[in-house]
Amino acid sequence: MPTLQETAAVPRVQPCCPPLTRQELSPADAATMAAMFKALGDPVRLRLFSKVASHPDGEACVCDIADVGVSQPTVSHHLKKLREAGLLTSERRGTWIYYRIAPTVLAALSVMLSDAP
Amino acid sequence: MPTLQETAAVPRVQPCCPPLTRQELSPADAATMAAMFKALGDPVRLRLFSKVASHPDGEACVCDIADVGVSQPTVSHHLKKLREAGLLTSERRGTWIYYRIAPTVLAALSVMLSDAP
Repeated sequence: MPTLQETAAVPRVQPCCPPLTRQELSPADAATMAAMFKALGDPVRLRLFSKVASHPDGEACVCDIADVGVSQPTVSHHLKKLREAGLLTSERRGTWIYYRIAPTVLAALSVMLSDAP
Repeated sequence: MPTLQETAAVPRVQPCCPPLTRQELSPADAATMAAMFKALGDPVRLRLFSKVASHPDGEACVCDIADVGVSQPTVSHHLKKLREAGLLTSERRGTWIYYRIAPTVLAALSVMLSDAP
């Protein structure tokens, strides 16, 4: 297995929180989670996120997902925002950077938004 | 049971979508869902949303949830944004307006963000 190298240091953002229906968010948790939702609150970013999430093997090279109707620098900018919010991780392997949904993020968001009492 | 009256017409926004891990979002669905995430992408709005979601009986009067450290007009502005995004519904009963999480919204968001393959 090749050695994997992180492309850039990004803050470690931990998703959190019990279901919203069970317990009110603390101000600190609300700040963390609002940053994640804000990152998903742009149609192009959300499409990029969904392209990574739905890609075979759960990871995608920027070359796999860049057809969203904006320039390549704009795609890179959006991917950076998703990384900074803790939603994506990235690894450089050779020439390419590969993106994955950050571990535990989807499950955490899903639990937080579940409508279980 | 009293007759309930909607306080204002807001667009009917329907949440949608299979899990992101299963299928890429269409541009149209991405626009709809990004608007919901954008509405949740502000810490105060997310706290208000969580206060409504976690309130006993699943509904809250603005008087129940306004202690988020901003002025009452700002609270009203945020609640309007949450309604416009399709996340909250509101009903006037007598003097007060009561807010609820829009039916199906939490379940739809939770399914979309679930990490089931």
